[in-house]
Amino acid sequence: MEKLKKYASVKDEDQFYHQGAVELLVFNFLLILTILTIWLFKKHRFRFLHETGGAMVYGLVMGLLIRYATKASNVENGTVYECEKLESGPSTLLLNITNQVYEYQYKREISHHNINGHQGNAMLQKMTFDPSIFFNILLPPIIFHAGYSLKKRHFFRNLGSILTYAFLGTAISCIVIGLIMYGFVKAMVHIGQLKAWEFHFTDCLFFGSLMSATDPVTVLAIFHELHVDTDLYTLLFGESVLNDAVAIVLTYSISIYSPKENPNAFDAAAFFQSVGNFLGIFAGSFAMGSSYAVVTHLTKFTKLCEFPMLETGLFFLLSWSAFLSAEAAGLTGIVAVLFCGVTQAHYTYNNLSSDSRMRTKELFEFMNFLAENVIFCYMGLALFTFQNHIFNPLFIFGAFVAVFIARACNIYPLSFLLNLARKQKIPRNFQHMMMFSGLRGAIAFALAIRDTGSQPKQMMFTTALLIVFFTVWVFGGGTTPMLTWLQIRVGVDPDEDLKGQAASQSASKLDKNTTKAESAWLFRVWYAFDHRYPFLFLSCCASIHIPTKTKHLQLHLPKAKVEHTLCDNHVVTTASGKEILKLQF
Amino acid sequence: MEKLKKYASVKDEDQFYHQGAVELLVFNFLLILTILTIWLFKKHRFRFLHETGGAMVYGLVMGLLIRYATKASNVENGTVYECEKLESGPSTLLLNITNQVYEYQYKREISHHNINGHQGNAMLQKMTFDPSIFFNILLPPIIFHAGYSLKKRHFFRNLGSILTYAFLGTAISCIVIGLIMYGFVKAMVHIGQLKAWEFHFTDCLFFGSLMSATDPVTVLAIFHELHVDTDLYTLLFGESVLNDAVAIVLTYSISIYSPKENPNAFDAAAFFQSVGNFLGIFAGSFAMGSSYAVVTHLTKFTKLCEFPMLETGLFFLLSWSAFLSAEAAGLTGIVAVLFCGVTQAHYTYNNLSSDSRMRTKELFEFMNFLAENVIFCYMGLALFTFQNHIFNPLFIFGAFVAVFIARACNIYPLSFLLNLARKQKIPRNFQHMMMFSGLRGAIAFALAIRDTGSQPKQMMFTTALLIVFFTVWVFGGGTTPMLTWLQIRVGVDPDEDLKGQAASQSASKLDKNTTKAESAWLFRVWYAFDHRYPFLFLSCCASIHIPTKTKHLQLHLPKAKVEHTLCDNHVVTTASGKEILKLQF
Repeated sequence: MEKLKKYASVKDEDQFYHQGAVELLVFNFLLILTILTIWLFKKHRFRFLHETGGAMVYGLVMGLLIRYATKASNVENGTVYECEKLESGPSTLLLNITNQVYEYQYKREISHHNINGHQGNAMLQKMTFDPSIFFNILLPPIIFHAGYSLKKRHFFRNLGSILTYAFLGTAISCIVIGLIMYGFVKAMVHIGQLKAWEFHFTDCLFFGSLMSATDPVTVLAIFHELHVDTDLYTLLFGESVLNDAVAIVLTYSISIYSPKENPNAFDAAAFFQSVGNFLGIFAGSFAMGSSYAVVTHLTKFTKLCEFPMLETGLFFLLSWSAFLSAEAAGLTGIVAVLFCGVTQAHYTYNNLSSDSRMRTKELFEFMNFLAENVIFCYMGLALFTFQNHIFNPLFIFGAFVAVFIARACNIYPLSFLLNLARKQKIPRNFQHMMMFSGLRGAIAFALAIRDTGSQPKQMMFTTALLIVFFTVWVFGGGTTPMLTWLQIRVGVDPDEDLKGQAASQSASKLDKNTTKAESAWLFRVWYAFDHRYPFLFLSCCASIHIPTKTKHLQLHLPKAKVEHTLCDNHVVTTASGKEILKLQF
Repeated sequence: MEKLKKYASVKDEDQFYHQGAVELLVFNFLLILTILTIWLFKKHRFRFLHETGGAMVYGLVMGLLIRYATKASNVENGTVYECEKLESGPSTLLLNITNQVYEYQYKREISHHNINGHQGNAMLQKMTFDPSIFFNILLPPIIFHAGYSLKKRHFFRNLGSILTYAFLGTAISCIVIGLIMYGFVKAMVHIGQLKAWEFHFTDCLFFGSLMSATDPVTVLAIFHELHVDTDLYTLLFGESVLNDAVAIVLTYSISIYSPKENPNAFDAAAFFQSVGNFLGIFAGSFAMGSSYAVVTHLTKFTKLCEFPMLETGLFFLLSWSAFLSAEAAGLTGIVAVLFCGVTQAHYTYNNLSSDSRMRTKELFEFMNFLAENVIFCYMGLALFTFQNHIFNPLFIFGAFVAVFIARACNIYPLSFLLNLARKQKIPRNFQHMMMFSGLRGAIAFALAIRDTGSQPKQMMFTTALLIVFFTVWVFGGGTTPMLTWLQIRVGVDPDEDLKGQAASQSASKLDKNTTKAESAWLFRVWYAFDHRYPFLFLSCCASIHIPTKTKHLQLHLPKAKVEHTLCDNHVVTTASGKEILKLQF
């Protein structure tokens, strides 16, 4: 008997390993399908369905298969046990069963209405994976890649507008969605679809904040491919990158906003505490990310560039550590890793050996690609495998209405205000395109899945998922026709319109010339800082673009440091075609 | 109250995310330290402690810190609950606590003697991660990299010897360790340290099989750096790669060997079933891995090489799928991924675009590097964070003795037998060096941690861990002095001694010449197969080494297929230095 039981337990465990393998295999299979689809689409220049949209379709089909083609296991079919002594659910539970102590780990709270539902299907349960995997593993590479591949010059030229859209716009969007949803919820309570205590105004605001994270990855991919106007690209890209960070911190601040007495009344103290939290968390995360980048940068003194693999490894680990440290310190890792990426691209990238530059770029590109497609596959899967969906048609309808109105309230009024100040106006068709590009994606989904413990949260999750599906497929697919319809110019060389400025700006790194680009004062401040503390910027290798026909060039080099960071040979090459003077200190 | 509880649960969850971040951060920190150490060692050409040894030291220190510097949390301090209705531990438990149903997941069985020990330390519990992570995530890249970077020509020249050491040698080692340990166990029962029913002969054999997986990563790294004699390198590398696979399948076969009646008596039927299992699993895994490689290879017809990232992604995913499919089918993923790697290196590698070749090589190298160091860090950590260690001095002493005797019984008699058949004998000093290089590492550890449910298994785990520490530090550190002492020649050019043969062999791909290399018949059979079905081998790009002063070269090209696989331009370049004719079909 003893023996038999032992073998049974070994067998169970083996089954467990194989199950883990099966889940991963399902994802691998979906990704392989996605890759083959991307290749087909690219080959036939088919742009109506983006790869992420395709990944979602495959996920959906797979979810359907898993749901209806796998049997529910009988063992776990919803037998609920009682334990008198327990008063709340501890995170680890020790149980004495027939004189053998077993350890159980807390997984989730189950709402009453679905205990006897599809509970027993082990495959479904395994397929709904831990939200912490999203936050700790899948999101960081995506966000880091966004920061790392940011075109700084274009970004800073439009910085004022981007910040306005990202901060003010997201706040507007959050509040508008919150208000509209609160109206719908009130109506639903009125007609008896909801109980009043289930949904507070803060819950509506919470929903508003998570639905404010736009993710126009589909649109941007098409923009990139068609070489759409760089300013429009930068505005959208910059907005979406920063707006993720804002939405995440906003969601967190709202979730810890807890008014003392009546949860529907406005509590000024708690409100200002939330605002303070928001600012504190944002600033803290920013500081954390940037300081990690500076630490990475300091590794140039170690001459690690002789070993590209170690260099790449260190770069990768330090960037991830920026994320993890911020999370561990109670800040927002996503914000930290974003600014870490931006700072790394500015300081560290130029100091890497050319081998490491390639390696890091390819590595992050690859990780971004995989993570993005895993998330979109998973979103497709979740529609059928997640077991606590609450489809409430009125709530879903309300959310769709709210999301579009909020996007309009964000883009049009802010564009109007910005156009008052901007020299180069944001034209009407750009505004329409930005309105149209308000897709929701990975971040909204990840924020929604982070907490699905209560019924309102489950309803929000279901709704968020549907909005993601709709926007990615419909808006993502409609990007190319929309560009034609709005007569937005395509086929623009990204370096063309900035060439003159770029040249003078680059030279200014060492030449102390100030640039004339509009609203790039922060850029100038930053470069002035670099000039003041040149050892931070100058290091192993630096490439300087020099305007054509330059006869005389003065270089102010911090000599003491130059000798310190001597790494490769001191090589000076002049490529006659582009007139680039490459210096390696 | 309702409200408060809700917020409390949200807060708990957040704490949980942060904890996940803290664990990952600890590993990141250890890896960063390891990288900096490697760099220091490389810079100062310090070879007495290998990076993996360093990683273990850091893990050990960190484990010590976590164990004694973090407080035990009060909540979980070993309160054991009783549930009358339960008769065995289900994998998922639904508990009704104050009218709210919670779901708990089975984690492990706890032995009686340590319920009141260090149980309560949540940090320690979090740090001991799921063994399935080892098997599904960390081991595959290491094994795949081993297969992918295998030097086929050298490998096949010594194939007979390698197979003898790997199959016969591992079986001998397993049986010898099993017998010696059984003797020690009998003695321990005699003096009352063990109860007779706790340890069967099959348990001893199980221990023997897991301790038979050698992992001379430290030694091989030094060999590689010092350019030690290629034959010795190949023998050791080949043995260790295949021997891992053999040991894993052996361990699995022994664990499912269950004699009907008396567990100590020999049951012929069950024994032959185990042998059958072994052969079936090995052959099945081999077939699975190779067929995935062929599938990957067939993607050449898709002209995917125009998109290096997709190509790399597909390559990566299909190789991992080989592992996962084998696991899901009840075979051994490690064996599958190993042969997948070998076959990929032969068929697919040459068909990748040059960009993808670089990318895949760097990617797998990087993943191998990270995975290896994570495992070694974790081994260091496990000594202090694993909570069910059983240190039994006699058992540990017995295991050390058994491991060395078994290694001697493997190397010396087999070398003697092999030397009877080999033209190029394995000299005495090579045999000593191979004896000395019987390090135990990642695989032994992973096999031991896979099952720590019972007391004998816990004792085995503790012992395996100590043997790994000892061999990696002492033998790994002693490699360089040992090489000098045994007067083994270093600084050998790996291509030097095979150049003549290599040239004629390479030409034989297309020229139908047979090679004269000893014991390379399998190699010849394989190449004859390739010649027969050339579309399998010939594709986008193939490089052929041509002996110097070749005037006339006949190429048999399968024309129909060549046009089919036309991918890049038909470029013929002759590098004057090395006389390489590069053909791209």
